[in-house]
Amino acid sequence: MAGNSFGKIFKLTSFGESHGTAVGGIIDGCPSGIKINIDAIQKELNRRKPGQSKISTSRNENDNIEFLSGIFNNVTLGTPIAFAIFNKDQNSKDYNQLKSIYRPSHADFTYQEKFGIRDHRGGGRASARETLSRVVAGAIAKQILEKYKISISAYVSQVGNVKLKKNYLQYDLTKTETNIVRCPDENAAKKMIRLIEQTQKNGDSLGGAITCIAKNVPAGIGEPVFDKLHAEIGKAVLSIPACKGFEIGSGFDAASMYGSQHNDIFQINKNKITTKTNFSGGIQGGISNGQDIYFRAAFKPVATIMSAQESINTENQNIIFKAEGRHDSCVVPRAVPIVEAMTAIVLLDQLLLQKISQH
Amino acid sequence: MAGNSFGKIFKLTSFGESHGTAVGGIIDGCPSGIKINIDAIQKELNRRKPGQSKISTSRNENDNIEFLSGIFNNVTLGTPIAFAIFNKDQNSKDYNQLKSIYRPSHADFTYQEKFGIRDHRGGGRASARETLSRVVAGAIAKQILEKYKISISAYVSQVGNVKLKKNYLQYDLTKTETNIVRCPDENAAKKMIRLIEQTQKNGDSLGGAITCIAKNVPAGIGEPVFDKLHAEIGKAVLSIPACKGFEIGSGFDAASMYGSQHNDIFQINKNKITTKTNFSGGIQGGISNGQDIYFRAAFKPVATIMSAQESINTENQNIIFKAEGRHDSCVVPRAVPIVEAMTAIVLLDQLLLQKISQH
Amino acid sequence: MAGNSFGKIFKLTSFGESHGTAVGGIIDGCPSGIKINIDAIQKELNRRKPGQSKISTSRNENDNIEFLSGIFNNVTLGTPIAFAIFNKDQNSKDYNQLKSIYRPSHADFTYQEKFGIRDHRGGGRASARETLSRVVAGAIAKQILEKYKISISAYVSQVGNVKLKKNYLQYDLTKTETNIVRCPDENAAKKMIRLIEQTQKNGDSLGGAITCIAKNVPAGIGEPVFDKLHAEIGKAVLSIPACKGFEIGSGFDAASMYGSQHNDIFQINKNKITTKTNFSGGIQGGISNGQDIYFRAAFKPVATIMSAQESINTENQNIIFKAEGRHDSCVVPRAVPIVEAMTAIVLLDQLLLQKISQH
Amino acid sequence: MAGNSFGKIFKLTSFGESHGTAVGGIIDGCPSGIKINIDAIQKELNRRKPGQSKISTSRNENDNIEFLSGIFNNVTLGTPIAFAIFNKDQNSKDYNQLKSIYRPSHADFTYQEKFGIRDHRGGGRASARETLSRVVAGAIAKQILEKYKISISAYVSQVGNVKLKKNYLQYDLTKTETNIVRCPDENAAKKMIRLIEQTQKNGDSLGGAITCIAKNVPAGIGEPVFDKLHAEIGKAVLSIPACKGFEIGSGFDAASMYGSQHNDIFQINKNKITTKTNFSGGIQGGISNGQDIYFRAAFKPVATIMSAQESINTENQNIIFKAEGRHDSCVVPRAVPIVEAMTAIVLLDQLLLQKISQH
Repeated sequence: MAGNSFGKIFKLTSFGESHGTAVGGIIDGCPSGIKINIDAIQKELNRRKPGQSKISTSRNENDNIEFLSGIFNNVTLGTPIAFAIFNKDQNSKDYNQLKSIYRPSHADFTYQEKFGIRDHRGGGRASARETLSRVVAGAIAKQILEKYKISISAYVSQVGNVKLKKNYLQYDLTKTETNIVRCPDENAAKKMIRLIEQTQKNGDSLGGAITCIAKNVPAGIGEPVFDKLHAEIGKAVLSIPACKGFEIGSGFDAASMYGSQHNDIFQINKNKITTKTNFSGGIQGGISNGQDIYFRAAFKPVATIMSAQESINTENQNIIFKAEGRHDSCVVPRAVPIVEAMTAIVLLDQLLLQKISQH
Repeated sequence: MAGNSFGKIFKLTSFGESHGTAVGGIIDGCPSGIKINIDAIQKELNRRKPGQSKISTSRNENDNIEFLSGIFNNVTLGTPIAFAIFNKDQNSKDYNQLKSIYRPSHADFTYQEKFGIRDHRGGGRASARETLSRVVAGAIAKQILEKYKISISAYVSQVGNVKLKKNYLQYDLTKTETNIVRCPDENAAKKMIRLIEQTQKNGDSLGGAITCIAKNVPAGIGEPVFDKLHAEIGKAVLSIPACKGFEIGSGFDAASMYGSQHNDIFQINKNKITTKTNFSGGIQGGISNGQDIYFRAAFKPVATIMSAQESINTENQNIIFKAEGRHDSCVVPRAVPIVEAMTAIVLLDQLLLQKISQH
Repeated sequence: MAGNSFGKIFKLTSFGESHGTAVGGIIDGCPSGIKINIDAIQKELNRRKPGQSKISTSRNENDNIEFLSGIFNNVTLGTPIAFAIFNKDQNSKDYNQLKSIYRPSHADFTYQEKFGIRDHRGGGRASARETLSRVVAGAIAKQILEKYKISISAYVSQVGNVKLKKNYLQYDLTKTETNIVRCPDENAAKKMIRLIEQTQKNGDSLGGAITCIAKNVPAGIGEPVFDKLHAEIGKAVLSIPACKGFEIGSGFDAASMYGSQHNDIFQINKNKITTKTNFSGGIQGGISNGQDIYFRAAFKPVATIMSAQESINTENQNIIFKAEGRHDSCVVPRAVPIVEAMTAIVLLDQLLLQKISQH
Repeated sequence: MAGNSFGKIFKLTSFGESHGTAVGGIIDGCPSGIKINIDAIQKELNRRKPGQSKISTSRNENDNIEFLSGIFNNVTLGTPIAFAIFNKDQNSKDYNQLKSIYRPSHADFTYQEKFGIRDHRGGGRASARETLSRVVAGAIAKQILEKYKISISAYVSQVGNVKLKKNYLQYDLTKTETNIVRCPDENAAKKMIRLIEQTQKNGDSLGGAITCIAKNVPAGIGEPVFDKLHAEIGKAVLSIPACKGFEIGSGFDAASMYGSQHNDIFQINKNKITTKTNFSGGIQGGISNGQDIYFRAAFKPVATIMSAQESINTENQNIIFKAEGRHDSCVVPRAVPIVEAMTAIVLLDQLLLQKISQH
């Protein structure tokens, strides 16, 4: 109820403040008998971690995962999988000034309003460090989905005004991880990197967008009427820090289309049912139809910028405020594994649910 | 789990196939002691109903609500509120041809894949008739929200290529219900109506978009990290039939903005905390900040069009198929009360949850 | 959250006040493709209904069920199954005196305290009429369990001081339904009937106990640590009106036993694993072990008695009060199908959950 | 869904195998702004811990709690409270023989059947070490309940055939903690201790019973029809390892009573509504009525005994088996804080829920 659990069958409950003892979570409902590759989980964490490249913050957080339960000799027991990533470098003196300030477009004010108290150090619970738990659960979900041949891959499709124009089918997605901005179009990647570097110098920050594709999801996944597959993915992705928009398949473009254009015509292709077009984004009536699922998510620019800003303090006084420390000026490349993780959790969860749909 | 319930505290469980005996639902968790205005509920149903204007289908469904429990002398008892709208005109012979056809971009195929069986008559459970239950629960939620001075209003901001360009603050929203397309800009409304009529003549259909605003939501509502307020609203709205995209506040525009532009500067205004701009859309860190909450949702064109289309049948054969009956060529105006209803359910639900957040 | 739903996968949400329009419910999560025998459901309702024999109240409520959705040509669709039993004989004038009285050991006072309002007619939501919905859902669950060869049978093992002494294995349970008190021991049955008739004449009421056995439940069902199988059954049965106690297997007798007596020794029997004794009641560590599951439940005497009693009214004044109308002096025989129903719902629910426990 | 979470608003999710890295949990939904007394939590853990007296196992587990999140300067943040108790003395070689044996009346066989795999070391997830998490969450719940003047106290009312005969009102419950068996009747306590010591010498084990009382619970708590207050407490208590029976108020005695005896007559006492008797156990219609809530729970004798027993191994062969190590021969005294903890969690959870029942 209190918003720190996600999933129905494969259920992650997350915990942790940025400068508390640890962040982590419990996964309850992971099927038993799954061999877990711990290295692959750590690798996903490394894709998310700060300091991984020149366009990322120079803070060097070594996010080493420790499993506390639920895995025995590298195999899942079917019991809760608890894990923690201990916060090593808790130099919270850096954050003393935050105690009395409500930073613009941060969650300082709203947490205070909600709870009447907040851990001001590094954003507390509202810190993006929270997403570590998502990546861990997503990495486990991905390993299980692989057994069903389902793969998920996301890439950066926009940074500021540098925006990929083409459909995902027209890019070679194996190139996504070949550059630090995680964009499969090399030219665009270079522009994006340059833009981020320039923005960093200016003490400013940048928004962007991520496109994500799930392949080989079987038809029949999703639980209408309220838990439609794209509604679940939508919620999952919108819950990622800084996400402001979500569109599935044709998305906002659908608003200006005619039905005769938009309808995806069914056809038999080598004895398999496919569709000529895929404006539906692989989901019809809230249930997967076996085609590629793809969506796009928008991210706002990071709220922390390195210029002086007006704001107010906890005494309701107007102040001028300037952020300190080292921060990403564009977090979108680091959000790629988070988007994949949330998608993986939803797909696995719904896949498990579908096992009991029919008698 | 099976996707027919929505809400945590104020919880709607919905039922009904388009041509079954009835559609309806149970609301469990409605606070006791609320005087209910049944006429106001019926009025919301009438805003949704087919046949209400020349641009709507000429089917004339009289959707009269009957309450079966939970309300005593017009006051809520705190016990489950059950309601049903009986399907009167169940002429299902019209639908015999649908038994063996998978219509393009409909849910015939996916329901069959999910359940191995489907009620083919009029779309069965996938029919938009399902949204009646949403409107009823939303109308009750609205009445409770009014006691907190919270108001919700949505309008059509796009039909096909006719798109409102300005921010919602620049329209007089009291004009929304003065025209049949529910657009507060009279000129645009005329263009939209003309476009719908023309499209109807062409046997085609149209998509569109809806903008929705919630005013006077107090700061502190929403349950991060996973149940962020905009993630909950996003899921609610994306679960409405035909919805393909959702954006809160700045939405997809945020992707191309700088932080220095996007940050909403806090200021003290007549002893109240407000923000200079509201790109956040009234939500920061997943929690309401007291400013207007606004979002936009995209709807695809209705899948049913009055022209011949290729498709396949349940025997996996290619066929040519042409829809019969009377159908809206643009459902977006009728979706306005549904968007409001889903928003109302989320806001009430989260408002109730917030009552137990602090000691 | 508000207590009117039961089950995780196969989930019943119940509604209805005794003298409202209808009682009924929605079952969400029933697997698709199950052929439903409506007559068998009605038969279970008839086992529960008042007026079925001389020891039951002479009120003649014809509890005819109507299905509103989820079943198409007698087969489940996988969509919500809604049903209602309309209250025909709503002569609520009988209940005018109840408006201002808190009857002893009834729920009048507590509902008023909880909700600040109550439907006083015939007990409102606290009426045992609520159990109709349990019986319907249980009857459907039973039909599905039969496909797994699982059978559930309960019998009356105590009425007042007439108590069966032997273990269930020593009775011929096919005789349970041969007498109106639902006791498989014919001599005891006669004594029970006589005691009930005598008590009725005295204007008094009687408690009793029910024993229930589930056979052929496969090993592996139940979800520790909190949702242990007997904890779930315990909650289900304790939620039945008037139930005051629940014991699984050895139950309260276990408190005075030694481990050397109580331990159920495993042995191989015709290549199957069984236990020499079954003090565990078929459940070990909260998970079924394949042996018979059996439990006993205690029911208090009906609160409505036909003698004058002291009480208070809603004005907090002391009063003398005498019940009117026709009432059972012992409801335990009519509770037998309710106990079976709740057990069936739990077992089916956990059986479905177990399908996704292992990879 | 997978059974490791308990509570609706104040929700504990538990993790940990007996010989894994740690046991612990996450509490989500604890209200913010509560000052937490960590020492009081540790004290409850010490009441549960092994080796605390001569009648308890000589294993000396120092169960030191570490909080990982959710508490800042000793005050709850409203965010998830994660905690862990690391398993220090993980000498798992002791348990090698258990790898291939299904011990009688333990959960070895059923976990294997459920999950196809198990952590055999010290019972794995089925170990009573799991109850540490219950005690921690219960200790926090107790601290919050104290602010509402609600107190919970349990005592041992039976060990083997030594059984307290009187109602709880006739004992001085402040004496419960003055002896190592936690029985308020000093004579009975001596007999119990002697019986336990004798049984330990015999290499056998003993069952028992616990009585628990909650005082000052306000009227109006509980969520009928399915989540009746005693049904929730019943489930909570039945989920404790070794619990075989639960009875509220009059319990199984109610079965042999007449309504004229059992009905609790309301009366006005110093302007407060009370009842002459309290056979209801403080709960009517599933909702608290303001009187004392009291119940009794039965516990079976510990399955581990120090004598040779027949059993089978994982190869389905008959074997003779003898337990090793140090074990309690009666765990009932150590279960007292666990019973209190589970009761506290239910009461707090329902108290929070009740805050949103009425408008």
